[in-house]
Amino acid sequence: MRAVTGAGTAIWGVGTSAFAKQPSVGGPRLAWQAAVEALDDAGATAADIDAVYAGSVFGDPGAVTRCLQQIGIVEVPVITIENACASGTSAFHEARLAVETGRYERVLAFGIETMTSHFDGAISPIASDPDGAQGYAMPGIYGMSATRYQCEFGVTDEQMAAVAVKNRRHAVGNPRAQHRTAVTAEQVLASPMVADPITLFQCCSIADAAAAAVIGPRGGSPDPRREVAIRSSALRSGRLWDHTCDKVWGWDIVADTAARAFEAAGVGPGDIDVFEVHDAFTIGEIIATEALGLCAPGEGGRLAESGRTALGGAQPVNPSGGLLSRGHPLGATGLAQIAEIAWQLRAMAGDRQVPGARLGAVETMGGGTAGIDGNACVVAVLEQPG
Amino acid sequence: MRAVTGAGTAIWGVGTSAFAKQPSVGGPRLAWQAAVEALDDAGATAADIDAVYAGSVFGDPGAVTRCLQQIGIVEVPVITIENACASGTSAFHEARLAVETGRYERVLAFGIETMTSHFDGAISPIASDPDGAQGYAMPGIYGMSATRYQCEFGVTDEQMAAVAVKNRRHAVGNPRAQHRTAVTAEQVLASPMVADPITLFQCCSIADAAAAAVIGPRGGSPDPRREVAIRSSALRSGRLWDHTCDKVWGWDIVADTAARAFEAAGVGPGDIDVFEVHDAFTIGEIIATEALGLCAPGEGGRLAESGRTALGGAQPVNPSGGLLSRGHPLGATGLAQIAEIAWQLRAMAGDRQVPGARLGAVETMGGGTAGIDGNACVVAVLEQPG
Repeated sequence: MRAVTGAGTAIWGVGTSAFAKQPSVGGPRLAWQAAVEALDDAGATAADIDAVYAGSVFGDPGAVTRCLQQIGIVEVPVITIENACASGTSAFHEARLAVETGRYERVLAFGIETMTSHFDGAISPIASDPDGAQGYAMPGIYGMSATRYQCEFGVTDEQMAAVAVKNRRHAVGNPRAQHRTAVTAEQVLASPMVADPITLFQCCSIADAAAAAVIGPRGGSPDPRREVAIRSSALRSGRLWDHTCDKVWGWDIVADTAARAFEAAGVGPGDIDVFEVHDAFTIGEIIATEALGLCAPGEGGRLAESGRTALGGAQPVNPSGGLLSRGHPLGATGLAQIAEIAWQLRAMAGDRQVPGARLGAVETMGGGTAGIDGNACVVAVLEQPG
Repeated sequence: MRAVTGAGTAIWGVGTSAFAKQPSVGGPRLAWQAAVEALDDAGATAADIDAVYAGSVFGDPGAVTRCLQQIGIVEVPVITIENACASGTSAFHEARLAVETGRYERVLAFGIETMTSHFDGAISPIASDPDGAQGYAMPGIYGMSATRYQCEFGVTDEQMAAVAVKNRRHAVGNPRAQHRTAVTAEQVLASPMVADPITLFQCCSIADAAAAAVIGPRGGSPDPRREVAIRSSALRSGRLWDHTCDKVWGWDIVADTAARAFEAAGVGPGDIDVFEVHDAFTIGEIIATEALGLCAPGEGGRLAESGRTALGGAQPVNPSGGLLSRGHPLGATGLAQIAEIAWQLRAMAGDRQVPGARLGAVETMGGGTAGIDGNACVVAVLEQPG
């Protein structure tokens, strides 16, 4: 397998809709908001796009193509990818490789999910199979991960709550997030219990949203000084959590994917100035930060309450507020993470800016409904323009 | 956009499960049947596969990854594509391009759909949106196409029935088809009316099935004499049928995609010895054969009853029995078409063999639930080994 370093590709522009429960807006309008912003940002038009890689999980067949055609992206290849929670970053990865290998010049990486029309609930409702009906849905799976972490490493309820407190505080500065009010640890811990020890404020919400990035050759955009270089990206599958794993939910696959992405970029985790990671539940960020190498295994809880990963700390994680604040519209999430890091690296992140951020990383990890082994993980390393 | 001719890629092996309503078999076993046959046929093992591109429409998130992991395909990138009815051939196209551009050495193109667990009905049930609830589902859309064809070109009920008679007769020789009994034109026309003028025997059935192909560099397999060369493939989107089209359902997009695939392969439609085309409904084959250039526009009905596209004719279409005989498990369909052409070009098609077939073509066309504009079309040109 040839390693693709991504030295030759860049993000020319990014865009997102608002992230909210907004069933009345509809997929085509969300798509328009995200794609047109990304195209404008790239100095491009719909006619410039050679192909689209799109992430979407719950959409009707062909729904993405329909949305895109209504904004003028017609005839070109549209490949819709369902890689569970990592669908958006899988689309990003495939789009980048398509440019890197010279197949297309300008590719739109796109993601969309209209969840309120599919689900009627406040928290992740992925529970359509028999296991799910028995409670072995995503909150339950993460709840078991958290229980094991509490037992094995002494992670505390307060450390988990610290993730939610941090990310909700970050989101106060993110006008596109769904939840923009800060919460206290007491509020997090007093919110309704969903899957012991995970309380409601430690769960991502559903949302309706779209997000997009225009990807092309480095130096090829109308204004190369605004290009965010893609240093690398990696996509892996792997068992998340079964008798062959000695780590809990996702640890192994995130560590494996991150190692490949970091190696291809020629960096280590200590070189990254800002991260967007997959905090679908608070314990998810704790596990992800360990697997990404921000701290030693078992230290993720202490890292969360140390302040090191907060805005103002040495390596801020989820300055956007993360999935806990945006909500988690599956297909859109990964590209919203990409957009946030692109804004950070261009110093466009306003009140949530990480000063002087030069390198950023995105991590998304998705499992299927049955949970333990159907999944995908993507890690990407991005670099500031110039 | 760079044209990719596919001169350097080949199908090393193919495999399918049976095509049937077989809810008790389950996705993992269907996947095993298809993937292991394809790997054996390629002289490869699960450990040889560098990446998977999979077509699946109705599966739960991560379901494909789960199925593959249970047959030993773990850790490698798995990209699950939802491109409506063309999901399987979209996966084939992306797999081929990934090899062609040097990204991977050996890629599994895979497709699966377990429809009986999702739908409870005998005919294509894609009617989940408000339009569908009013009857504007796939049978109704094809029914309107047929009505317009009858009005505009004098296509007769008998010509449409001739497609079903031909394809069901072909399927008598296909042990993997769902419907293996021949039917008469009288039986076709007397079967229950589904969407005037389309009767039940003119509609594809739902099915549970999987299909797969191993793709690698040409000349690189353990036995290059068995490789089926991929001369070209093309993937396009486009409006199927609205006020901007002067052709009915799918004509324009099939013609556009076929023109690109034929040009890239350096062939014309007259050079192709055997076709597998998207006969989800009888009128679909009539339109597809016209758009592929087998006859002039409006002549598809007469072509169907001429015998020219039957086994024994000059250019057999759907020797496998097509979707009308296999059924149409969306993600699996395209790769079953690929497998049939691979068997034909290797002279392995038994009672349904097209003697001396040297070049074969596959066409798949998919629209979304709302029908008129969300879609994808893939056309591929394959060449006999040696």
